[in-house]
Amino acid sequence: MRLRNIKHLALALSLGIADFSATNCLADSSNQKREPLVLDSYGSFFVGGRDIHSDYLVRPDDPYLAFLAPTGTITVDQMYVQYKIPLGAHRVPIILIHGCCLTGKSYETRPDGGESWEEYFLRQGHPVYIIDQPTRGRSGREPTIFNQVAEGKADPSQLPVVHTAGHEGAWLIFRFGPQYPEPFPGLQFPLDSLPQFWAQIVQDYNSTVSAEGTPLLTNLSLLAKKLGHAVLISHSQTGPYPEETAIFVSPQGIDGIVSIEGLCLPDFNNAATTLAKIPTMFLYGDNVDKSPIWPGIVQGCQAWAGQVNSAGGNTTVVQTPQWGLHGNTHMMMLDRTNIQVAQNIDNWIAKNVESKKH
Amino acid sequence: MRLRNIKHLALALSLGIADFSATNCLADSSNQKREPLVLDSYGSFFVGGRDIHSDYLVRPDDPYLAFLAPTGTITVDQMYVQYKIPLGAHRVPIILIHGCCLTGKSYETRPDGGESWEEYFLRQGHPVYIIDQPTRGRSGREPTIFNQVAEGKADPSQLPVVHTAGHEGAWLIFRFGPQYPEPFPGLQFPLDSLPQFWAQIVQDYNSTVSAEGTPLLTNLSLLAKKLGHAVLISHSQTGPYPEETAIFVSPQGIDGIVSIEGLCLPDFNNAATTLAKIPTMFLYGDNVDKSPIWPGIVQGCQAWAGQVNSAGGNTTVVQTPQWGLHGNTHMMMLDRTNIQVAQNIDNWIAKNVESKKH
Repeated sequence: MRLRNIKHLALALSLGIADFSATNCLADSSNQKREPLVLDSYGSFFVGGRDIHSDYLVRPDDPYLAFLAPTGTITVDQMYVQYKIPLGAHRVPIILIHGCCLTGKSYETRPDGGESWEEYFLRQGHPVYIIDQPTRGRSGREPTIFNQVAEGKADPSQLPVVHTAGHEGAWLIFRFGPQYPEPFPGLQFPLDSLPQFWAQIVQDYNSTVSAEGTPLLTNLSLLAKKLGHAVLISHSQTGPYPEETAIFVSPQGIDGIVSIEGLCLPDFNNAATTLAKIPTMFLYGDNVDKSPIWPGIVQGCQAWAGQVNSAGGNTTVVQTPQWGLHGNTHMMMLDRTNIQVAQNIDNWIAKNVESKKH
Repeated sequence: MRLRNIKHLALALSLGIADFSATNCLADSSNQKREPLVLDSYGSFFVGGRDIHSDYLVRPDDPYLAFLAPTGTITVDQMYVQYKIPLGAHRVPIILIHGCCLTGKSYETRPDGGESWEEYFLRQGHPVYIIDQPTRGRSGREPTIFNQVAEGKADPSQLPVVHTAGHEGAWLIFRFGPQYPEPFPGLQFPLDSLPQFWAQIVQDYNSTVSAEGTPLLTNLSLLAKKLGHAVLISHSQTGPYPEETAIFVSPQGIDGIVSIEGLCLPDFNNAATTLAKIPTMFLYGDNVDKSPIWPGIVQGCQAWAGQVNSAGGNTTVVQTPQWGLHGNTHMMMLDRTNIQVAQNIDNWIAKNVESKKH
């Protein structure tokens, strides 16, 4: 088996089949050197998950059959959590939750090497927890149906929905510009480092879980309860998930919510009453009015904020131009002005979350 | 769309469909508090990758069709790299490469919360780079064939091999014990934290790349060249990949190799001559002779080491009992004595790699 693979490798490489230049630029460097960062502790762990039985862990035609058994127990629905606690942490813990077709990488180093939101919040004294959604990134998923279909034991139509964002489609929905590859004037996204951004897009298997988002909600609640108190910052696809966690699982441990560029909930199950107790900001970037999709989403959130505030809540809808920041995109955590955006979020947290509880 | 999903969520949660207790234990805590860690810098980036066209990025029956386009360009074969550089780094950079059905998580916090190999090597003054293999973890993969099959545009037999390790099968191949769930006497793996370990196993899509391992080899070379010099530590599935990188791509930047519990190469392409220039250690844990598979692998490596050394090399095969360490498993980076193992590796690096070059 090894010999055959090695021949394939040699052939592929000698033919120059692959072009590996797309991201061949390490992040660095035009950015100012930052001060050393002192961590009290750091690491990673999983929350949630359940054990299931499968007879399709490896296929009969797989060379790994010699090492792996088709039948056995696997753990699914777990959520990977990477954390850092700065020395002298004195602020509320922050949980950073990525969106569709992305992973926790969203909150790490900018495509052009600039400072990440994770690093900014650490330097402000917040413990920071970055997650990979269940079925995404370092959180595993369920292989059974894929191998059942491959072996003719299930109909191909049963394959779960898998999707990803192409560069051209993402350009529009992420509001990089009016049409690919034309940027909006004054855009703050580091377009000269686009290959590093495209490289972080992954396939989204959210529909392979029992109901979209369910393990994520349960796991976010487990994490918030364990921390005792936290601000949940969600993005895009996961925009409403912190609120859904509070409503469907528990509000315990959720001290505040910042939903970046997400959809808003309709009122149901008396959601507004529960959520009135949690300070919440819905945040959007620039150029909303130049998109066919985004104005309706922002209006929906404004209506929703009105409902929560009528129930006594503290919910606000902000577009970054209201802070004097222009050219921010759907991926504002990676924009060149990402730290100015984060400063405004942090001010909001200090005033609306920490001053009330701590 | 949101309303329907929300109803599903409410139903699933109210029925208690999911049991989320499997990993509901945060890593902590029985372990002694360690000193703060001072990082000169840290972050993440991608190396490698290429752009391809696809018409199957989202399916016609996917609710995300409203946001994502089926046709477009995506980036594949890229490799995610997470790095930390300790203040006052004075040692050779280390690249940590995970094995089958795992991600970079292998080298992070132990299942029982104990210190990771990453943290140990940082505290010894090494810059540390942890990767997710292309198609694994935070490195994306190619969705086209899955959606083609789902839409009836390709035969199910074309689905790529996907495999994962069940608990029972992993128990044997990882040498936790003679049969599941019986452990070997004196086993050092933290069995009381098994749920945290099972949670880190993911599905392995290696066969979805053009030839097994090819982008990984190219990307490892890109990374080693960029760093200028590095020791590559590989594990299990990736055991021979650092050597293959040196042979098929380039030895440039590869100052040393530590292959943990991997297979060994047959000699081909005059590999022994190239590899004779790179100090290499093949390392195995305890209880090799109690397994039906492992004695042959170790013997293969001993024969291979003989060939490289005959060509003037410095290649050694070690089993941890030779260091006075007993009960180590295939996952020795997560064993309770993982730091003692790492100390021995670090001593080997200092003596065989750093003393020659730096």
